[in-house]
Order: sequence, then C-alpha cells, then structure tokens
Amino acid sequence: MASNVKALLFDVFGTVVDWRGSLIADFTAWGNAKGMDADWAALVDAWRGAYRPSMDEVRKHPERGFVNLDALQRQSIEPLTASLGMTGLTAADFDYLTSGWHRLDPWPDSVPGLTRLKTRFMISPLSNGNVGLLADMAKRAGLPWDLVLSAEVFGHYKPDREAYVGAARILGLDPSEVMMVAAHNDDLAAAQSFGLKTAFIPRPTEYGPHQKKDFAPDGNWDYVAKGIDDLAAQLGC
Amino acid sequence: MASNVKALLFDVFGTVVDWRGSLIADFTAWGNAKGMDADWAALVDAWRGAYRPSMDEVRKHPERGFVNLDALQRQSIEPLTASLGMTGLTAADFDYLTSGWHRLDPWPDSVPGLTRLKTRFMISPLSNGNVGLLADMAKRAGLPWDLVLSAEVFGHYKPDREAYVGAARILGLDPSEVMMVAAHNDDLAAAQSFGLKTAFIPRPTEYGPHQKKDFAPDGNWDYVAKGIDDLAAQLGC
Repeated sequence: MASNVKALLFDVFGTVVDWRGSLIADFTAWGNAKGMDADWAALVDAWRGAYRPSMDEVRKHPERGFVNLDALQRQSIEPLTASLGMTGLTAADFDYLTSGWHRLDPWPDSVPGLTRLKTRFMISPLSNGNVGLLADMAKRAGLPWDLVLSAEVFGHYKPDREAYVGAARILGLDPSEVMMVAAHNDDLAAAQSFGLKTAFIPRPTEYGPHQKKDFAPDGNWDYVAKGIDDLAAQLGC
Repeated sequence: MASNVKALLFDVFGTVVDWRGSLIADFTAWGNAKGMDADWAALVDAWRGAYRPSMDEVRKHPERGFVNLDALQRQSIEPLTASLGMTGLTAADFDYLTSGWHRLDPWPDSVPGLTRLKTRFMISPLSNGNVGLLADMAKRAGLPWDLVLSAEVFGHYKPDREAYVGAARILGLDPSEVMMVAAHNDDLAAAQSFGLKTAFIPRPTEYGPHQKKDFAPDGNWDYVAKGIDDLAAQLGC
C-alpha cells in the first residue's frame, strides 16, 4: 500500500502540535508578566470555536478573495475578548495573542517521527494555517518539513477539494501517491474522497476536557498509528 | 542593514546549483548507458536559451493561465532535439531529460552556507522552478530550506513584481525585511525596485564558455559575497 506513496501531508493543529496546551501556557505566562488575570483556557476554547465558522465565511464569499488564517484569527479575537469581559487590551496585545498560533509546541512524538519519515518520504504540512505561520512554527519547534504547503497556496481551505488535489498537483504527483495524515476523521474523509491515501493518529487530549470526537478512527483509513513515530515504524522508516 | 532582515530568498538555477555542469554530466552518463552519442552540452545550452522566451510567452498570455517550468521545459525539448539532429528519442526519454532539472547539484559552498544562514534567518528559494522541482532538488541535494517558494505559488515568473512582493507578503514580512540573493544582476535589480534588500554572489562559470555577464555586481547591492558561505560570514552566522 505505502510502496506507491511518495509524499506525506500533515494536518498541523492538533495532529502535529498541541495548540490548546501551548496557547494556554503562552498566554498565562504573558498575562502573569503583565499582571493580567484572565481565564485563558476559556479564551482559547472560544477562539478555536470561531475557527471553522470564520473559514466558512471565506468559502461562502469567494468574491471577497481569500483571507488567510492570521487575518481571520485577528478579526475573531477582539469580539471574543469583549464577550468574555476582558477589557483594556491594546492592538499590540491582540497582535501578540494572534501570533501565539505561530508558537505552538509539538507533541512529543512529532519531531522524532517526522525526522524518521523524512528519510523515505517528502513531508509537508497541508494545514489551514497560512504559510508564514507554518514556517515560523516549524523554525521555532524544529519541524523538519521538506516544504510548507498551506490552504493559502491554493486559495481554498480544507476540506475543499482544491487544497488536497492542488497539493498533489504542485508536487507533480497523482493523488494516490500522496497520503494525508491527520487526527481528524473529517479531514481524512475529504482526502480519501479526492483519491489520497489516509493515516489517522488519535490525539485524545487535543481539546482538553471538551474533546467530543476523533478518539478513534471512524473510516476505512489506510493506516492507524499511535503517534507520528509509530506511523514511521509502520512505514518501515 | 541586515539587522532588519528576517528572511533570505535565493535564486536557485546558477546561484545555488550548477545547472549546466549537472545536466551535462547527468545526460552524458545516461546517454552512455543507452549507447547514445550526442552533443549534450549543445542541447543543455540551447535548452537554457529557450528558458526565458518560454516564460515570456506565459507573461504575454495571461488568459492561458500559468504554465509551470516543468511543462515549459517539456514543451521546449522536443523541437530542440530535432533542430540538433537528435533522433529516436521517445516520450519517456523526453520525460527523463526534463526531470534532469530536478537533479541539479549545488555549488560546493551552497549547503554549508545555507546551513549557517538558517541559524539566523528564514531561508527559502524564490525561483522560477516549480515547487515540485525545487522540493525534489532540495531533498536530493540536501538543501536545508525552511520552506519552498516559487514563481508558481504567485502565478508570475520573476522578474514580475508579484513574485517578489508575494513572497514577502506570504511570509508576513515587509519587503524591506526580505533579502534576495542571486548571481544575476537583473534579478536583484527587480527585487530592489520592489523594496527588497539584495545580495550578489558571482557564479562566473554558470554558463561555461558562453558566460557573457554577471561576472561582477553592476548595481548598488546591499551585499556582495564570494559564495553563500561568505555571505553567512558577512551576516554574522
């Protein structure tokens, strides 16, 4: 099955990095340094809740052009803090919070697993995060990508077809030569429907106490692995 | 000057890799294995000669959509071999020759220099080569890019403004925070006109006996270095 696969594309938020734990830790330390007390977990959870609806707005209004994730997150954060009763934040504060998405820490198996996979496969993110965000994150966290692909390159957020098929095409590969790796069954369902191979890695603590799904595979995926290092082992790396 | 620079963008063909020497060596070995005698240097030189006119056609006909470099090279090669009196080449042979552009070897200073620069700067190609070509080349040659940017991502070949300004924008940077590194004065002139910083590295053997220009800087570039390793030294890496 994998003998034909030449490139692995990774979902990033949740699959490769722990966005929730990283943001809460970052904002808590930042708030403490400023003497600002806030329920950062509530903010992070609400912010993540705004993520998909904000991308849906882009999808519904192609005439407005593609808006990248940094811009969407920056638009979401001001009303969210207001609704949570957080006051006194400046534009620079909102910029800092938004840039937190560039400073996410990987799960413990991510860097070792990617390093092994890179020996045999072309490895890239295929994330809804924008290119600059993903490049900053990789540089800080040591994610050893061969290249950085993003919804932004294709002008379409996952799960739009253009993102998956565009990633295969820009690599000069058939979709069947590309495998999507994700902690989210819906991402894999889309990838599979467009002809890509699929690998599922559960991340049961991604949403902390609010996790409601993706504890287990719910589709006929080509691989199911305990982590990225386990995927490397299964693929003979 | 460099204190403000956060990302370095590299021209690739000629600046980072020796396309002429690599292709001649690759095709000679391949031809010998097939018992095919040909003037490979003549083919490579003619092919490079067709490079810029083929991109100009894309520029003149935006209604046809962007055509990537692999496709342009594949279109050019058949009539070129015919005009050189080379016969009996199959479609698979033309595909092999075209893929030669993915297998170019770096100049001796490229990998050591990029490795040093990567410690302080975001490093990426900004090449007219397509993404898949650049990613394949980097993987084979060990070019340690943080990400892979290409004219293909912006739908415009250099020296179009969209390529340079698009690269800065997708990195979330101001053009003045980005430095173009190239062995070609015309590439740097374009980059500078759009607000980027510039570094010139002469590659006086790039075109072999046919080199006619770019032996020395002919503009007011921010840096002039003997190689990528020397650029790293000048930038304190």
